[in-house]
Amino acid sequence: MLEELKREVYEANMELPRRGLVTFTWGNASGIDRGRGLFVIKPSGVEYEALRPEDLVVMDLEGKQAEGTLRPSSDARTHLELYREFPDIGGIVHTHSTHAVAWAQAGRDIPAYGTTHADYFHGPVPCARNLTAEEIDGDYEANTGRVIVETFRTRGINPVHVPAVICRSHGPFTWGRDAAQAAYHSVVLEEVAKMAMFTELIHPEAEPAPRRIQDRHFLRKHGPNAYYGQKESRG
Amino acid sequence: MLEELKREVYEANMELPRRGLVTFTWGNASGIDRGRGLFVIKPSGVEYEALRPEDLVVMDLEGKQAEGTLRPSSDARTHLELYREFPDIGGIVHTHSTHAVAWAQAGRDIPAYGTTHADYFHGPVPCARNLTAEEIDGDYEANTGRVIVETFRTRGINPVHVPAVICRSHGPFTWGRDAAQAAYHSVVLEEVAKMAMFTELIHPEAEPAPRRIQDRHFLRKHGPNAYYGQKESRG
Amino acid sequence: MLEELKREVYEANMELPRRGLVTFTWGNASGIDRGRGLFVIKPSGVEYEALRPEDLVVMDLEGKQAEGTLRPSSDARTHLELYREFPDIGGIVHTHSTHAVAWAQAGRDIPAYGTTHADYFHGPVPCARNLTAEEIDGDYEANTGRVIVETFRTRGINPVHVPAVICRSHGPFTWGRDAAQAAYHSVVLEEVAKMAMFTELIHPEAEPAPRRIQDRHFLRKHGPNAYYGQKESRG
Amino acid sequence: MLEELKREVYEANMELPRRGLVTFTWGNASGIDRGRGLFVIKPSGVEYEALRPEDLVVMDLEGKQAEGTLRPSSDARTHLELYREFPDIGGIVHTHSTHAVAWAQAGRDIPAYGTTHADYFHGPVPCARNLTAEEIDGDYEANTGRVIVETFRTRGINPVHVPAVICRSHGPFTWGRDAAQAAYHSVVLEEVAKMAMFTELIHPEAEPAPRRIQDRHFLRKHGPNAYYGQKESRG
Repeated sequence: MLEELKREVYEANMELPRRGLVTFTWGNASGIDRGRGLFVIKPSGVEYEALRPEDLVVMDLEGKQAEGTLRPSSDARTHLELYREFPDIGGIVHTHSTHAVAWAQAGRDIPAYGTTHADYFHGPVPCARNLTAEEIDGDYEANTGRVIVETFRTRGINPVHVPAVICRSHGPFTWGRDAAQAAYHSVVLEEVAKMAMFTELIHPEAEPAPRRIQDRHFLRKHGPNAYYGQKESRG
Repeated sequence: MLEELKREVYEANMELPRRGLVTFTWGNASGIDRGRGLFVIKPSGVEYEALRPEDLVVMDLEGKQAEGTLRPSSDARTHLELYREFPDIGGIVHTHSTHAVAWAQAGRDIPAYGTTHADYFHGPVPCARNLTAEEIDGDYEANTGRVIVETFRTRGINPVHVPAVICRSHGPFTWGRDAAQAAYHSVVLEEVAKMAMFTELIHPEAEPAPRRIQDRHFLRKHGPNAYYGQKESRG
Repeated sequence: MLEELKREVYEANMELPRRGLVTFTWGNASGIDRGRGLFVIKPSGVEYEALRPEDLVVMDLEGKQAEGTLRPSSDARTHLELYREFPDIGGIVHTHSTHAVAWAQAGRDIPAYGTTHADYFHGPVPCARNLTAEEIDGDYEANTGRVIVETFRTRGINPVHVPAVICRSHGPFTWGRDAAQAAYHSVVLEEVAKMAMFTELIHPEAEPAPRRIQDRHFLRKHGPNAYYGQKESRG
Repeated sequence: MLEELKREVYEANMELPRRGLVTFTWGNASGIDRGRGLFVIKPSGVEYEALRPEDLVVMDLEGKQAEGTLRPSSDARTHLELYREFPDIGGIVHTHSTHAVAWAQAGRDIPAYGTTHADYFHGPVPCARNLTAEEIDGDYEANTGRVIVETFRTRGINPVHVPAVICRSHGPFTWGRDAAQAAYHSVVLEEVAKMAMFTELIHPEAEPAPRRIQDRHFLRKHGPNAYYGQKESRG
């Protein structure tokens, strides 16, 4: 069932420790088959070294396990909320990558200080608020997803243009057209989080890149007038 | 004698340089057989590359060497104090990992800024005080252990809920149900020490994660209602 | 066509990920054949792991593609401007290396704090200004090159003595007598950018190295009285 | 000639890039045969990957090359001054390791913040002053050595108890009983330089470790009452 998707999601999961984004089991990638309304996600607490494609868990969009005997990632409910509310995304990644977590713990948006950031994220990467006591005591992981969605809605951010968020006191989620691109965005996010921290250490009053440069770089890689890369593989 | 325990403690020792937690010989792991009242520990000053399971030293809880011709780690007396006073722990690790040492040298508790921390440590990781001149001139290594115990007692911290300490002007000790888990906690401690430093660089007035989030995450992984991981391998 | 130059430029490109200076496709190296007025550059958006010498693109100094079916790097127009205006350089490298980008995002010159810097860069590494809205909306990449040239001209800096620049809100370009030396200078730039940031963290009022020490070190490695290295391989 | 010493010095040189202390050719190790008054040092500007034991250069204590066709390291005169004035040392290493250079560029002693430092350096690692214009214009490398010696003499520091210095605006030199120990001390110096920087980032008013703890740790590893390590291999 969903062999190809499982293989893709497996590869996206394995990319995370390879890129230094996860310690132990602190991360998970998923991918969705929109036609069938099913998504595939890493099982909970399984070491990456031991993970096999067939260990991945299949879930439907009601949160029911459609296949697999292992429990899904404890963050599966967060992924589910994002798949439901962000219909244009095909893959999601969660990590505890060091610098992205530091911004989340600091409770600040990651400013768009330069073109490295602007090539992938059209504006600052928002920091979602802490959950309330009720949200924590209730369906915690689903509420994490709901607060992410609320962040994008209330601030008028298009999740396709800013495919990343940092959850206050917790860490980052990224997404993309598939699990591979979501993992790619996790690498970019960690790198720009590090660069932004260093930027402020060098100049505490640093300003974001001028909006026009941000636009130019984002549109150089995205949309009908993109001209970065080869025609068949823009991204 | 204690072949299986020696193998476990050997593996925990070797994990330390593999994870980048020790330079040269600056670390040691031990594990205890509670039934026999004996613990196994790394010999002093032996390079990790040259270490073999049979080099490990067996000690009793009076501090007498029960087996082995090599001297035990100079920190063996600290381990001994912790085994005596913290009856629920089965393994101990000491390192000079960079960021945990920096907090110890700064003389500050490591605040619980986020869920990465809260998943393993239920509250800040305490910084134990400097030893007095008398404690230094006396049985220095045993007194190091006594000051750790004093720190947990006077501050009312359960060592099973916060399986780590940083000793002022020195560095970290971690523990767990066995040597492997103690080593695991050393990896976590170094990572959260790094994240906490970065958090303050990004936002000097950062606040710890709300207590409710800390509780939720700790209890998600520990205790009767834990739901992280697969049933057979919680933690 | 230009097989040897392609091989050299290929090697310079591959040096960038090997030295940790590029993530994904975020960098490019080029080299010029001054006699023929042609330069060879990395194709746009091609992964380094997949790059082969024959994939490199040949351009003339009017910006026309002289060979190759892949599109050239989107930064090719910047390289072209530098080759036109800096007649003594034979190779150029662009990266998004972390610390050099951080200085660029902070909008500050990298001060010459010590001999590591002075051995290669005779004075601070200048930070070129942001482009104006018109420059961004026009021929953006060519204008990036023009602003670099303007920076060196208006500040009276000899590009052979300071073979590096950081472009505000963007990142570094380095150059040299050939592509290999340009790549070498990218490694040096990233290292001195890191050292300079740490220097200010340790002492916010740090002063540049005395001019006389800077001169001594630069001239130890460059010019007729150089005495570093073996006679046949100065540099 | 001096085959065994060359082998030792070769190994000490190779340890430097292996431990991440040198980029390109930015470092050199030497060792002395006190009986014959000859020391062996790395040739200038030779890449580590290409270095062979037979490439090493033999010098006498007058600065004359006793063997070898390659030029000695441009820092050979600095080594020579140290061998002349510090009669108890048998090996010297110079690097541009990142954090030690940052302290040198900041112009500050590295404080003895903890036991990692105190285990090897009995007190702060001194920062030697900048050279005067006359010292720079004269025999620059020899004067670098003379200023190091002056630093230890005027401040009353025993170079055997503090086997390291950082030269203002330049970088570190370390030494030891032989080239291997000098290289070992370079690794330690870089690590404690990093820890000290982080300590101040976490707590800008951090205090050095109490003198009594420093003494205890230094004497645990050095002198007649040392009890760290196995009897045959103290240090």
